[in-house]
Amino acid sequence: MKLALPAIVFCLGVMSLLPALAQETLPAWNEKSSKRAITAFVERVTNPSSPDFVPPEERIAVFDNDGTLWSEQPMYVQMAFALDRVKALAPQHPEWQRTQPFQAALEGDFAALAASGEAGLMQLIMATHAGMTTEEFSQIVQQWLETARHPTLQRPYTECVYQPMRELLEYLRTAGFKTYIVSGGGVEFMRPWTEKVYGIPPEQVVGSSIKVEYQWRDGQPALVRLPAINLIDDKAGKPVGIHQQIGRRPIMAFGNSDGDFEMLEYVTSGPGPRLGVLIHHTDAQREVAYDRHSHVGRLDRGLVEAPTRGWVVVDMQQDWRQIFPVTSE
Amino acid sequence: MKLALPAIVFCLGVMSLLPALAQETLPAWNEKSSKRAITAFVERVTNPSSPDFVPPEERIAVFDNDGTLWSEQPMYVQMAFALDRVKALAPQHPEWQRTQPFQAALEGDFAALAASGEAGLMQLIMATHAGMTTEEFSQIVQQWLETARHPTLQRPYTECVYQPMRELLEYLRTAGFKTYIVSGGGVEFMRPWTEKVYGIPPEQVVGSSIKVEYQWRDGQPALVRLPAINLIDDKAGKPVGIHQQIGRRPIMAFGNSDGDFEMLEYVTSGPGPRLGVLIHHTDAQREVAYDRHSHVGRLDRGLVEAPTRGWVVVDMQQDWRQIFPVTSE
Repeated sequence: MKLALPAIVFCLGVMSLLPALAQETLPAWNEKSSKRAITAFVERVTNPSSPDFVPPEERIAVFDNDGTLWSEQPMYVQMAFALDRVKALAPQHPEWQRTQPFQAALEGDFAALAASGEAGLMQLIMATHAGMTTEEFSQIVQQWLETARHPTLQRPYTECVYQPMRELLEYLRTAGFKTYIVSGGGVEFMRPWTEKVYGIPPEQVVGSSIKVEYQWRDGQPALVRLPAINLIDDKAGKPVGIHQQIGRRPIMAFGNSDGDFEMLEYVTSGPGPRLGVLIHHTDAQREVAYDRHSHVGRLDRGLVEAPTRGWVVVDMQQDWRQIFPVTSE
Repeated sequence: MKLALPAIVFCLGVMSLLPALAQETLPAWNEKSSKRAITAFVERVTNPSSPDFVPPEERIAVFDNDGTLWSEQPMYVQMAFALDRVKALAPQHPEWQRTQPFQAALEGDFAALAASGEAGLMQLIMATHAGMTTEEFSQIVQQWLETARHPTLQRPYTECVYQPMRELLEYLRTAGFKTYIVSGGGVEFMRPWTEKVYGIPPEQVVGSSIKVEYQWRDGQPALVRLPAINLIDDKAGKPVGIHQQIGRRPIMAFGNSDGDFEMLEYVTSGPGPRLGVLIHHTDAQREVAYDRHSHVGRLDRGLVEAPTRGWVVVDMQQDWRQIFPVTSE
């Protein structure tokens, strides 16, 4: 059978329209320089006749999670989870009523909690995150997310994600990018829900981790979570996590704090076209305004060096038409 | 513009033919029970009306490398690489002429090398695999592969891959699978060439690794390889490597030695349809026949337990029409 020429022309026309349609999206972004810098970069690296064309397999974009894809104020979501887990497990641990940092966690005494320092935090994490199988932990996370609500936004945490960033993830995937999360948060705390919420599958989530061991449990092989650190995927640990799991240098990186500095530095110092983007929390009305003096998601060096390094700084208040998605509740 | 009906029919016809054409391949496999077991499984999990249908995002297949995708006899390719590197680096290390295990490596004294045990092996690996940046190491591997030749097959190592397995990788990808390598070999020794040779990108290679550190070198940020083990991705380490990098349980696993036992066990003990496959090296004429008594790629427990566990055992001599691809030389 012969294919009529008009039909071929029609087919090619439809095909060439598809990317263009997708690129007209990002409706939650205002038409300002940040959006233009991002879309111009994507057009440069995806246009086959551009000198900066990057083949699809090299189009890797990495995103911090806390403060970049979802809200990290007034405390990291995983910290809220750990505190709730301490409460849930307290009946099995009567000694926690009079042992720090558990007593502080149970009493909501954040000053005492802070005073317990990094060692105290690690104790809380290990007591609530280790000892079970990986599948049990995944279930615990999913069950918690179903009922937990953000303390000020009063909605499920998975609806405290940034709508402009969700659009950006989708936009990049349509342009042939593989999108990865590279977070200081626990990889197992994110994997159960990132596919549904961000369209990012478990294998494209890089994060901090504790060690696991292959054991038999109840007549079945299982991976058991051990109370020992495997990787802290923060600061200089982020390029390490990227290297271990992705094995090649991404060409775009998105972060919001100085914990993302080395990731942006690593990504943008490679050869060829590169883009680093920092999300600056400037919107006290619709979210929280914070940077240099925040104890969560502190951003100082990044703001100072962004101009000379050519990193885009997204001003949430100016650049984002909408912050959160419409809630389901 | 209106699309003529014949043109639509033609388009749909071509589209529906594509998967069928792909599934008629595997020409290097004889029409025997092994091939039929594999293709029947793939049809079961990809047919949307099958009760065993698996959505594309869950279709993950993992492959051991040494002895499963390429030849591991008379010694692991990475060991040949390490020995060549000792020779290349010897002028900078005059002390190696009289220090074991280096002296044995330089003299090709395999008895003395074996006598140095695991500790000796580790010394060789660290001396040849650490100290440089990840990018420098990748270059060293690529340059070595360009000139090194397999001692008996007399061809580049990247042409000592198994043609039936390359076809199988492609067949699975056409059926919507993500194909991963999960090897005891070094992840950085594989990533530079697996995309070209197997169609498997760096991010889908899981392997043993040494630690890396983010440092400044020559005014640029770089990841430097440290002489310290990060993960031994062998035996019970394989499910751990899978969990860390992939984050969900694959549904198909291919191996050839008892080093793959736990991987097959982990993969095939999950819920839903699962398939484990062992490649049995039975072909003394076209390759090497070995199993229970081999010091490289020993296969004993796997052979004993395969029947009760329902694992397919591929008989290379019977099942494979062709072993290696046509060489480029």
